[in-house]
Parts: sequence; C-alpha cells; structure tokens
Amino acid sequence: MSPNLDLAAIVRGLHAARDDWRTAHHRDARGRELPSPQVIEQMVEQLKGALFPMRLGPPQLRSDSEDFYVGHTLDAAMLALQGQAVLELGHAGREARLPEPQLLERAARVVREFAQALPEIRRLLDTDVMAAWQGDPAARSVDEVLLCYPGVLAMIHHRLAHKLYALGLPLLARIVAEIAHSRTGIDIHPGATIGRGFFIDHGTGVVIGETAVIGERVRLYQNVTLGAKRFPVNDDGTLAKGQPRHPILEDDVVIYAGATVLGRVTIGKGAVIGGNVWLTHDVPAGGSVSQARTSEGHGVA
Amino acid sequence: MSPNLDLAAIVRGLHAARDDWRTAHHRDARGRELPSPQVIEQMVEQLKGALFPMRLGPPQLRSDSEDFYVGHTLDAAMLALQGQAVLELGHAGREARLPEPQLLERAARVVREFAQALPEIRRLLDTDVMAAWQGDPAARSVDEVLLCYPGVLAMIHHRLAHKLYALGLPLLARIVAEIAHSRTGIDIHPGATIGRGFFIDHGTGVVIGETAVIGERVRLYQNVTLGAKRFPVNDDGTLAKGQPRHPILEDDVVIYAGATVLGRVTIGKGAVIGGNVWLTHDVPAGGSVSQARTSEGHGVA
Amino acid sequence: MSPNLDLAAIVRGLHAARDDWRTAHHRDARGRELPSPQVIEQMVEQLKGALFPMRLGPPQLRSDSEDFYVGHTLDAAMLALQGQAVLELGHAGREARLPEPQLLERAARVVREFAQALPEIRRLLDTDVMAAWQGDPAARSVDEVLLCYPGVLAMIHHRLAHKLYALGLPLLARIVAEIAHSRTGIDIHPGATIGRGFFIDHGTGVVIGETAVIGERVRLYQNVTLGAKRFPVNDDGTLAKGQPRHPILEDDVVIYAGATVLGRVTIGKGAVIGGNVWLTHDVPAGGSVSQARTSEGHGVA
Amino acid sequence: MSPNLDLAAIVRGLHAARDDWRTAHHRDARGRELPSPQVIEQMVEQLKGALFPMRLGPPQLRSDSEDFYVGHTLDAAMLALQGQAVLELGHAGREARLPEPQLLERAARVVREFAQALPEIRRLLDTDVMAAWQGDPAARSVDEVLLCYPGVLAMIHHRLAHKLYALGLPLLARIVAEIAHSRTGIDIHPGATIGRGFFIDHGTGVVIGETAVIGERVRLYQNVTLGAKRFPVNDDGTLAKGQPRHPILEDDVVIYAGATVLGRVTIGKGAVIGGNVWLTHDVPAGGSVSQARTSEGHGVA
Amino acid sequence: MSPNLDLAAIVRGLHAARDDWRTAHHRDARGRELPSPQVIEQMVEQLKGALFPMRLGPPQLRSDSEDFYVGHTLDAAMLALQGQAVLELGHAGREARLPEPQLLERAARVVREFAQALPEIRRLLDTDVMAAWQGDPAARSVDEVLLCYPGVLAMIHHRLAHKLYALGLPLLARIVAEIAHSRTGIDIHPGATIGRGFFIDHGTGVVIGETAVIGERVRLYQNVTLGAKRFPVNDDGTLAKGQPRHPILEDDVVIYAGATVLGRVTIGKGAVIGGNVWLTHDVPAGGSVSQARTSEGHGVA
Amino acid sequence: MSPNLDLAAIVRGLHAARDDWRTAHHRDARGRELPSPQVIEQMVEQLKGALFPMRLGPPQLRSDSEDFYVGHTLDAAMLALQGQAVLELGHAGREARLPEPQLLERAARVVREFAQALPEIRRLLDTDVMAAWQGDPAARSVDEVLLCYPGVLAMIHHRLAHKLYALGLPLLARIVAEIAHSRTGIDIHPGATIGRGFFIDHGTGVVIGETAVIGERVRLYQNVTLGAKRFPVNDDGTLAKGQPRHPILEDDVVIYAGATVLGRVTIGKGAVIGGNVWLTHDVPAGGSVSQARTSEGHGVA
Repeated sequence: MSPNLDLAAIVRGLHAARDDWRTAHHRDARGRELPSPQVIEQMVEQLKGALFPMRLGPPQLRSDSEDFYVGHTLDAAMLALQGQAVLELGHAGREARLPEPQLLERAARVVREFAQALPEIRRLLDTDVMAAWQGDPAARSVDEVLLCYPGVLAMIHHRLAHKLYALGLPLLARIVAEIAHSRTGIDIHPGATIGRGFFIDHGTGVVIGETAVIGERVRLYQNVTLGAKRFPVNDDGTLAKGQPRHPILEDDVVIYAGATVLGRVTIGKGAVIGGNVWLTHDVPAGGSVSQARTSEGHGVA
Repeated sequence: MSPNLDLAAIVRGLHAARDDWRTAHHRDARGRELPSPQVIEQMVEQLKGALFPMRLGPPQLRSDSEDFYVGHTLDAAMLALQGQAVLELGHAGREARLPEPQLLERAARVVREFAQALPEIRRLLDTDVMAAWQGDPAARSVDEVLLCYPGVLAMIHHRLAHKLYALGLPLLARIVAEIAHSRTGIDIHPGATIGRGFFIDHGTGVVIGETAVIGERVRLYQNVTLGAKRFPVNDDGTLAKGQPRHPILEDDVVIYAGATVLGRVTIGKGAVIGGNVWLTHDVPAGGSVSQARTSEGHGVA
Repeated sequence: MSPNLDLAAIVRGLHAARDDWRTAHHRDARGRELPSPQVIEQMVEQLKGALFPMRLGPPQLRSDSEDFYVGHTLDAAMLALQGQAVLELGHAGREARLPEPQLLERAARVVREFAQALPEIRRLLDTDVMAAWQGDPAARSVDEVLLCYPGVLAMIHHRLAHKLYALGLPLLARIVAEIAHSRTGIDIHPGATIGRGFFIDHGTGVVIGETAVIGERVRLYQNVTLGAKRFPVNDDGTLAKGQPRHPILEDDVVIYAGATVLGRVTIGKGAVIGGNVWLTHDVPAGGSVSQARTSEGHGVA
Repeated sequence: MSPNLDLAAIVRGLHAARDDWRTAHHRDARGRELPSPQVIEQMVEQLKGALFPMRLGPPQLRSDSEDFYVGHTLDAAMLALQGQAVLELGHAGREARLPEPQLLERAARVVREFAQALPEIRRLLDTDVMAAWQGDPAARSVDEVLLCYPGVLAMIHHRLAHKLYALGLPLLARIVAEIAHSRTGIDIHPGATIGRGFFIDHGTGVVIGETAVIGERVRLYQNVTLGAKRFPVNDDGTLAKGQPRHPILEDDVVIYAGATVLGRVTIGKGAVIGGNVWLTHDVPAGGSVSQARTSEGHGVA
Repeated sequence: MSPNLDLAAIVRGLHAARDDWRTAHHRDARGRELPSPQVIEQMVEQLKGALFPMRLGPPQLRSDSEDFYVGHTLDAAMLALQGQAVLELGHAGREARLPEPQLLERAARVVREFAQALPEIRRLLDTDVMAAWQGDPAARSVDEVLLCYPGVLAMIHHRLAHKLYALGLPLLARIVAEIAHSRTGIDIHPGATIGRGFFIDHGTGVVIGETAVIGERVRLYQNVTLGAKRFPVNDDGTLAKGQPRHPILEDDVVIYAGATVLGRVTIGKGAVIGGNVWLTHDVPAGGSVSQARTSEGHGVA
Repeated sequence: MSPNLDLAAIVRGLHAARDDWRTAHHRDARGRELPSPQVIEQMVEQLKGALFPMRLGPPQLRSDSEDFYVGHTLDAAMLALQGQAVLELGHAGREARLPEPQLLERAARVVREFAQALPEIRRLLDTDVMAAWQGDPAARSVDEVLLCYPGVLAMIHHRLAHKLYALGLPLLARIVAEIAHSRTGIDIHPGATIGRGFFIDHGTGVVIGETAVIGERVRLYQNVTLGAKRFPVNDDGTLAKGQPRHPILEDDVVIYAGATVLGRVTIGKGAVIGGNVWLTHDVPAGGSVSQARTSEGHGVA
C-alpha cells in the first residue's frame, strides 16, 4: 500500500525553502558549486592503497605488480582530486570570477605538487607507524599497527589533509580530516603542524586545534585536548583569524588521557603531562605536571 | 583447503539457541517483525539528498533538474518509510493484534505527516547551518559547514528523528539517531526538544537526554552531557517513564567542553557554563559558572 | 583537463620509500602477508546475520528458511576466516617457517573450534541483550536493543573477538574489535574477560584494557576507563607483557559516566562507582565511591 | 557544459503521450501492473544455481554446504516468483477483479507446485545434458556441456518456462524463454512439449512453435524451424487460438541445419531430415528426407 | 601460487604494439577520443525507463511519482549523451580541429533536438507495440509485447538510433543499434527509414540495410534480409557512399521467414513475399511472390 | 504473503537428484571441479581492456597512465586465469591424479605462455580491425569498428580462445568462444585456424568448425557455415576425433551470406562463393560459384 502523498506539494515546499535560502545567501546554484564528500572519501581510499599497497591495497595484490597498481590507482585519485580542486578554487574565488582556464591551471598545479609530495608523506607515515609500534607494549608487529590502530588511520588522513591545507585547499582538507574524525573520534584540524613519529593511543575524544605545533616523537592518549584559551580579538572587536592560539609541544612530550592544554603555551622537550590535568601555562623541558590523584596512573595499554 | 566443519551441527546449535530465546520471549518469528537498520540508513541518505540536493545530492546534479531529483528520491524514501513504519507499528501493537488494513492506514497517515513536515525541517536546518557558520571562526563559507561539520550532520538526523518520534515511531527514530551517533560520537535522544540555530562544535562525546528542552541559538562543545540526576520512581518503586528529568536550556546558552549538567534544572537565557563544570542546580539568566581553573579556557576553534 | 603529472616519477618515489621500509624491516613482500580488514569486516557482518538471522539478517528472511540462510552464510564466513587465519598464523610464525600443510591444518583447527563456539556465543549475547533491556528504562522492547544500542554492537564484536584471541589469533581479534571501536567509540581489548549480562550505556569513550576481568551483570556508562596504572617492568627494565594490570570488577558492579579505574584493583560485588571518580584502589563488596559533587547524578537515560 | 534542455517541457510531452496511450487502452496505472523482466532474470539465475549448485552456483561453494546454499537460494527465488505471479494473475484477471486474498492464495499455490516440480526438472535436464554429451563428438566431459552449450542453456530455460506455462503463468514463461532466446538465438515457445534427452547443436536460429510435440532423444541443428503452415481460422474468420498447428516429432528424430518443418505433420520415430529441407507433410518412422544436394552433409561438429 | 609472469615485459610488448598502430594511423591518444559503449548502454536503459516508466522503469514505481522519475532519469541520460556527443563530434572533426566551445555548443544543440523528439518517438513506438499485438495471435495483452518481444526491443533501439543518425551522430547510433543486434539477433542499420506500426516476429537473423525505406504497418519474420545487390561504384572505381541501394517496402507489405530482397527494388503496397524467396526485382502493389514449395507455409506463431 | 513451501522437502528432492547423477557419473564433488563461466567472462573483459586500453578500457583513461592500467589489469586477469587453468587441468587429469604442485606448475607455465602471446594477439587483431574497416564501405573510421562490429568482437574472443586451445585448455577456450557466440550469434570453434585480416560482416548465424583452416584477408557474411560433411569413423565404427573434416579457405576468399561449405574441401585463393550456395567440393583459385538466382546479389552493406 502506498502512503498516497501529495508529492508535488512537498516538492514545491522544499523548492520554496531552497529559494529562500539561495536568495538570502546570493546563490544561483546552476550546477554543483561545492566538492563532494563521497568523491573525496573514495579518493582517500585510493591514496591509502597507493601509499601502502601490500597492507591497505586489494587483498590479492602481489609485489611484482605493485607499481602497476600504484600508478593506476594514483592516476584515478589525482583525476578525482583535480575535479574537486577546481570546485573548491572556483567556489573560493567566486567573487573574483577567475576565468576557467586559469582555474584549471591553478588546480593542475596544486594536484602536481600534492602528488609529488606523496613519497615524502609515506616516509613520514612510516615514522608514525614505528612510533605506534614502540609506544604500545601490546603491539605484536610493526605491520599490524597499520591495519588496526585508529591513531595511525587518523595520521594518514592528517598528513594528506595538512598538505591539501598548505596548498590552498582548506575545504578538501577539512573533509579529509572529518572522515577520520568520524571513524576514529580523533579530531585533528588540518592546519596543525605535527612532526615525525607522532602517536595517539586509543584516540577517541582527542581534539587538536588549527595552530597547534607538535614536535617529533610526541605521544598523546585518548580525550586529550590541545585547544585555544580564547579567540584573539582585533581592535574593532572582530575575531582575529589565523592568530597562533593553540599549544606548542616540543619533541618527546607525552600527554596522558583526558588532559586539556589550552592557549599558546609551550610544553618543553620531554615534558610529561598527567591524566586529566587542566593546563593553561608553559611547562619547562623535562617538566612533569599531574594532579595529586593521577600521579600513578598513566595509561591503559 | 576447507576448514572441514560439521556445519550442520553448528546450524542446529544456533537453531536451538534461537528456539530457547523465542520460547523465553514468546516470539514465533514467522517473518521479519522489526525494522531494518540498513533500509533506514538508505532512507536517511535519500532524505539528506532531497533536503539539500545541490550539496548532499549526487555530484552531477544541475539546478534545472533539481525538482525531478527531489521528487523521485522522496518517493523512494517515503515508500521505504511506509514499509518500516508498518513493521514498527505492527511490532508495537502485536498484543493488540491490529488488523492489517488499519495498520497500513495508520502507517500511511504517519508517512504523510512526516513528508509534509520536510520543508519546515529544511528551514530549521538552515538555521542550524547558519549557527555553525557564525559560531566557528574557522568556517570559511556558509556552504561548507553542511559538508563537513559533524554537529550539522547530527542535527539533520535529530530533526528527522524527532519528527518520527513525535509521530509515534520511537524505534525508527532511535535507529536514525544511532546512525548519527555512530558517525559523529554525538548521542542525542530523539525525544529531545531543540530550538532553532543549534550548534555543537567538535561534538564527540556529547550526550543529550530524552526530556531535555533546548531554546534557540544554543551552543555546545564536545563531551557535554545533558543528563538525568536520578530516575523518577513511582510510589510502588517502579521507574516512572516519560517524566521530565533532563535540563532545560533557555535561549542563547553556551556550554563549554566537558561540562555535565544533570537533572531538571534550568539554565537561564544567555548563561555560560565553563569547561568541565559539574552542575546540578539552576543558573539564572545571564549567569556564568566555571571552575576556578577553567575561567579562561573556553574552546578549541 | 588532466593535471599532467609525471606519474612515473611519483610511482618510483613511492617504490623507493617502500624499499627503504622493507629493507629496514627485513620484509620481502612477495605476496600479501597480513590479513585484510575489508575481508574481516565482511565476515563479521555475515556472522552477525548468522547469529541473529531475523533481526540482523536480510530484511526479507522468513523463519522457515532461516537455517538455510544461517548455514550458507556461516559457510562463507568460515571460509573467509580460514583464509585470514592462515595469513595471521603464517605472519606470526614467519621466523619459524612453518610448512604450509601444517599451517593450513592449524588454521582449520582454529576455525572449527571457533565455529563450534558460536551457539554458546549467541547464548551469551542474549544475556547482554537482556541486560541492556533491563538496564535502560527508555527501552521499549527486548528486540529493539539489538537493532540500535551501540553497547550491544560492541559486545557482539567483543565476544567474537575474544574467542579469536583465545584461539591464538590476536591480530584478527584486534581488527574485529577496532571495527566496533570505530562505529561505537567503545574500545574493548579482545583479551578482556567479560561475564554474562554486560551492559554499556551510551558508550562513547569507554576503554577496557587487555587483562580486565568483569563479572556477571556489570553495567558501565560512557567515558568509563578500566586502565593500567603503570606497565609492569621486568628486572632488566623491559616491559613485562601479559601481566595482570587492569581492574577486576565482581558481579553486579555499576560504574557511572566518566569514572576512571586504574590498576589491578578489585571492585567488590555490587559496588557502585560514581560519575567522574578517579580510582586506584580496591572497593569492598557493596561499597560506594563518589565525588561529593556527584553523589546525586548517575546517568542520562 | 550542460545541454540546457527545457526538461519540464519534454517531461510534459512524454506525460501526454502516456496519457493518450492509457486512455486508448483503458489503463489507469496507479502502480506496477506487469511483471518485471529484471526480477525474473535474477530469479532464473538463482534457480540455475539451485538446480546445479557445483557447476552453475557460486565459484567457492563446497559440497558440505550445498544444501544450505540450495535452500537459501530457492527461498529467495520462490519469494520473487510469488511477487511476480501475483502481478501476472492480477493483470490477467483485471476484468474479473479477483479479491486480493484470493489472488495471493492462487499465486502461493502455483509457486508451491512449481517448487515441488524442481527435482523432476533437474532429472529431465540431466537427460538433456547426457544427450548433448553423446550427440557431440567434440565434447570432452559430461560436465562441460552444462557450462558452455547454448542448447543446454535453452533447455534449462525451457523446462522452467514450460512448467510456468502449464501452471497458468504464460507471461512469466514467455519472459523466461525470451531471456534464453536473447542469449542463444534459440526461440522455443514455452508451450512446446519436449521429451527427455533433447539436444540442439549450435542452436542459433532455431524456432520451435507453441503446439509442437517432441519425443525422446530428438536432435536438432542450428536454424531448424518447427512452425505453423497457416493459422487455423474459425468459421467466422477469426484466428482460432490454441489449435494444434506445429509438427509432431516422434522419438529419435534428427533434423539437420536449416531445415523447415511446417504444420501439424508427424515425423515418425527415428526419421532423419536433411539440411535445408522444406517439409510440409508426414514422414514415416525410419524415413529419411533430403535435398539431393544435401545428401552427404549433416553437421558441423 | 602465482604464475610468476614477467609482467613488465608483456606490458612493454603491448605498449609497442599500440605505438605501431598509432604511428600507422596518426593517433596520439592523449585522452579518450571515442565514445564509450558502456556509457551508451546505460543511457539507453535510462531512456527505455523514461519512455515506458511503468513497464520498463523500476519495479516499485507508482504513477504519482512517474514524472519525477522520468525527469530525473532523462536528465542523467541527456548529460551522458552530451558527453558522448562531444566525443563523437570531436573525433569526426579532428582534422578540422573545431574549437572546444563550438564543439560543446554543437553537441548541446544536438542533445536538445534529440530530447525534444522523445515524445514523438514514444508515440511511434506505441504504434509498433500495437502492430506486434495485432500481428501475433499468441499475444495475450498489449502490455506484454513490450516486456518480451525482441522485435519491439529492436524497434526501441532503432527509433532512438535513427534519430541520433539523423542528427549527425552515426557512431553513437551504430552503438545503440549493435546493442539491440547483440540481444535480439536483429540487425537494423540506423539509417533505415521505417514507418509506423512496424513488426518483426521472432527476429533472429533479420538484416535491414542503411538506405532501406519501409512504409507503414509492414511485417517481417525471422531471417529476412533487405540488402544491397551490389555497391554502387563511382567513375573512378571507388565505392559511392550513401547511394540508395536497399529495397523500398510500401505500406502493409508482409515478408515471411528467410526471404532475401536485394537492391533498390520496390515491393508495392500490400504485397506478400513468401518464405525463403530470393528477390531482386520489383513486385507490384497487392502482388504475391513465393517459391512453389513455400506456397502454403507462412509462419510459426 | 509467503508461498509457504515445504522448502526442506524440495531441498531433499534436489539433493537426491544430484546424488543419483553423481553416482551415475562417479563424481564426489567435494569442491568445485570445473571452471566458472562468470570468472572467465570477467577475465576476458579485463583482457579486452588491456589489449585496447583507450578504446575498450575505462572511459576516463589517459595515455600517460595507460601502462599502469594495462599492467594492473593484466595482473588480475592472469591471476584469474591461473585459478581457472588449475581447475581445468585438474578436471581433465582427474583420473591421472596429478599431484597438486605439478598441477600448479603446469598451470603457471600455460599462463606464462598465454601472457607472452598477448602482444602478438593484439597485432593480429589490428589486422582484423583494418580488414573490417576496408571491407565495409559504411565504416567511417578505423577506430569505430572496434567499438561496434560484432565480427571484430568475435575475433577478439577467437584469438584469445584459440591460444588457450593450443595451450591445452580446450574447456576455457570453449567458454570464451561461447560468450562471443551468445553476444554476436557467431559460433567459431576455438580450434579453427584463422589468418590475418579476417572479417565477418553482420555475423549472426556464422558457424566455423574445429578443423577449418582460413588464410589471410578472408571475408564472410552472415549465416555462412563452414561445416563437416560427415564424421570420420574409425575401423571399429567409433567416431575418429580430431580428424580434419572442415573446409580450407585460401587467402582472399569471399563467401556471401547464407552459403554452406561442408567437408575437407579447399576453396582456392581469391575464390568467391555466392549467397546461399551449398558447396561440398573444391573450388579452384580465382573461381566463382553461385546459384543462378544469386549472381547479382552480394551483400547488405
């Protein structure tokens, strides 16, 4: 039995709602103006296969056809990226009304730079994999952390997203980051600068802000926040965008579960921040901060 | 090499386990009695496309065929909803043994009302999108928040789920809500009443209870809980269902990350609750509550 | 317009990065050495259908063909498991260079034992479903908790993962657990021992460590951690693996949201731990621990 | 670049064309009135797997799970058949306006009879397979003819279609037959009666009419027609439907490529009809008919 | 076990073969130059649904959402056609090196004209459906011939292909025609001109040439050829393309199975050509041609 | 409404039918013994893409990633072939009970040889494409014949099938050939030897036997049969397999539509056989055979 709707009336109602929105926001919407999360999700899956073919690629892959798989998959991924980059650049510059050929050329240049960066991204990710293996006594093999550690998955997405962000595609970068956020509960802003050998254990609830700067071999546990104390304000009271407002973590810092670090503070090299600590000031190199109650508890592994 | 199982014995073992369960719960299970999460998940995807065709619909959609897409997609979604509604109503009324034609008619009526509410839901969601854009200094365009903010995704699900809940389909509503919970870590009970322009930043770990009432332009950060202090109990000691037991947030309230508000308390218009605060009493309009340590830290953006 | 990449150069760059990694880790990677998360994800979906055919199986299933569906689906799932088990056993024993027939036989034996355990796993899960139904006053029917409670989903994965772990397949077990972690935010190590009738409400942020031991009818809320205080260290300073280091929860314990219990402590039968409590010592049977501020707030339902 | 159509005008034009058709043919078309060829095609694929599980079923099937596969697949196929049978019976009886429950019951009875006939159909098909193997000197194994002989494929479809036809579902039968016609170029009317051990070699261009009667162990080559001479006419000049008007072939008849046999003639037991012969009269048992030129050429194998 | 190929050598060998071909044919093949049969096949399926929504559209379609389905489906089909038309026009004009905007505009114009013709094509096809119903005494309902008559399927493809051919897209037209040829064994050149109410019974083996002209209400049986006697030759001995060289069939002609009509002959109104006749001269209106042997046998129905 | 079958009884009935068959044919059927037509169909699609990447490969392929696509696709195709070859070799040698490693090695050798032959097969096919282009005055470009000529499709399948046949995989070869037969109505036995530049126009109904030998630049039209006159018989009356029994066509022979050539006759270089001719004797080089009636009619193009 059909519900017997007045479908046409509902379609008209939705049409009117869209019209009101578009009028209010000066949109004409002749065609798609915005990137497609589905397309980007597929592209990231392809990139993961191209970066780690024998572990994240198709089950039946063999090493003597690895390069063919990598080349073919990269080609598809970069073609998709080109299309999405054109959409983002066009949308960002819709007031400047950049002519189409210029838009295409700019997108092509960005895609080229991104593609050239992939070998280096792979090498960086290898350091993250090593860090996960060394940091978790429960890990049995350096290979397996790539297959099942959410912190490693989040870093694959972050290192790709961070490059897109640096190349002037912050929306694509954000979509890449949010896919990881959805799957892992780890929310790293694509703007965050993160050094080699970074490891997040368990991960759910971690939040890292846009201007955070993280050194080498840093380790975080679940529910750690690296946030802003307050938003910097311009003289006229408007929010000052892009100002450094999140913490700096020097090399070898460890921050245990539930700790919150806010503002442009610096946690010195090798410092250890205990579980659930709430911190809004600098900590010297080698320092250690903890709540009395947490002095003995550091992890779950 | 096959594992060489005694498959028949295992099938019999599982059959016996099912039989015991069904005997204990007075089920006969001739056919499917319960809605299908997969069907509902697909229906929600269709509804998202029908509500926001140029942003969440298929990548190649153009504006002059928008209404055709919307109508065709809605039709499929409402047909699916009709089938699932019959299952839920039949299951809920299985003791009353409602005759089939009555069941079908009741389901059709519910689907009609739900469909008619969609334009209004779209308009409400537009206010949430605007709230996200205004609330996050990092947002670059009003369009992009729809594509990648988990808080906006959670609200699309919630406003659909809340309507289903109000129309007497609490199980379908719950399934819709849990899909968002799984993807965003934001757990809003479909019964919660939420006003226009609601925004949840970051989102992971937010929990909002069934009888919570939230005004307009309210803003929450990650890990905020709006919970019950205790379950109201009837005179005979059994749990009293449906009693108001979660907080009321008046217009323009802001609650920072990690705060916990429990019980039927009222947070007055414009009040601000600091990070990690634990609160079980009313706060007057314009009031501000914080832990000493958190007075300066409010967010991550 | 194509981005016009020097694809061959990028493929060579990625090849070089892989070579360096493989040299450093003594891999030769002729063929796939590691299980495939996609294959395991599909296998778990099949097992869920085989365990609960009328609720998690295909929408159109009817009871007189249930056994056919169960047998056919189990067969496919066990064939997949056999293939993945060979990969894990081969990878784990790659230094011992176990001959192939022995590997296959060992995998077949493990698969047989796993398959034989399924009816018992179903019965255990039925107790978890009952616990969820009894523990949540908002639940309307014993059936619906199976469809939409993340805590129940996490337990389906855990009871399957725990069996794989016990049979010597810790990597497969971990992958199964991480799938649940990704969907629910609940992170249960496959090694954790959990009794009948276990219930996790809301769930996001729960972490349960490898050597935790949980009795019957235990109930946890979101953001509860059952972790290790510190890693036991051998005389020579290396980490001592496999030592008991996580809490023991006796029967009927309840732990409210946000509480953290660390170390090999014992929470006695029927004890209640309040929200956000930080606990590193034993609690006697029937005991109750809370922070002053949390004495009255226990949940969200 | 979009073609910039006036899509709405074209949709209106098509709507008008449909309206005119429906008015002319007294249709109201509220919902689907006719069976779906796609659904039937899928059903036939399932039946082929259920009839020959180890040869036409899924590649990875093993014999100890054969029955589970067969039962599960049959169940899906019969459910689909039930739905299609209701559509055909409803369409056929749309003037009688049969009440729905009666329609459903009639369809269910037909499906039951069809399902019960399947083992006998399998045994009949085994005789066709044997005939193909014996009739073609190029065949290497009795198994392979099932995999690649178009004549065998046509007979699988025919024996299923003939049963549907006999049970009062001539439209479903016709659709099943046309699928085989499309794939093999062999056009057997579902009404044709065909005995055990029937074999068509090569097959393209074979046409067998509705009232043809074929004995046991008959063999045809490509482009053979068993047709009607003329349509029988009633006294009033209208076509007399259902009258016997196609040939009778007794046991062990052989007809070579390109021969045409027209009318209700009888080809006696063991008779041989040569290539390209045009025949409109009876042939006695053991007889042989050929064109002079064709006396020596009998086949291609 | 892997076959252990020298894959790189084979890829090089294939590369060399392609290079030789491209050198010989002056191709550079930077990107796809030719339409994609898969894309066109999908487009035709969409058009069939849009032309006959309740019979060839999706099974669950209902009449009050028909227009939405039709509009949405047409939109997708015309977008695909636009892309393929650009490829064909670009390939055809690759020596003229038409500038891209002109190419796009030309393609858009063609697509518009094609789309506008669809209502008329639907009306023409309705006459073919009627002809099939009237011409086959075995047909039970006017609806069913659309579902299962190969002659009707061939005409749907032909009327679409003929329009594409007339609009200057002969390659797309040919691909559309070949899809029908593959499924039905009926080979109609897209250039053939065919009047209303055309019917081909059984169909396998029918061939109709490019310059054939067929009047209204004409009926053909299987294996009929309407061919060319010889190719017209120019004075210099080269083939003269596009010259009329196939038969003209006036209204109401009937041609029985296996007949061959060659050359630019005219078969007059109402003439009947018997089975297997070989004909290379005109036949007057009302005339009848048969081989002695075929005088009594006319069909199979 | 479910049809309410006694499914178990039907499954038992089908089981009994299978048992009887297996007993009669001495099968035990523990696992799949025979190749899978679906797997082979997919493999051929991959090979077609690898042989002609820019025309039969994926629509979006670009020339600078062609080799990656070719290598990756070949790898998948050859892996599939390896699996199917093992099945055929095992089935063929099931009485010899070849040990598994030997079987695998033999299959690997065959696959290697097949893969190495692919560049040569591509070059041969290029000559067939050229022949089609030159032979059909209606062809507009050398590229398009590859996209839509059934005769070219049949030759792609034949040249692959013929190689498999020569390498000792006649069953796989037959399956490859039958796929083309189904799609084109052209039935070429994989054993037939065919020279460069072969062209079949229209094609439906062409049959070419196993021991036919065809020279270079030969052209056939639809419904041509190259068959056997009779099966050679051994002294003991059994059929003599593998004896030459089909025609030899020397270079540059043309055979028009409907002609039948039977037996081990030789048609000399450049001879022309007219339409519908029935021929069982040799024709000298340059000769011409026609039926009086067919002297002027040669084709359809």
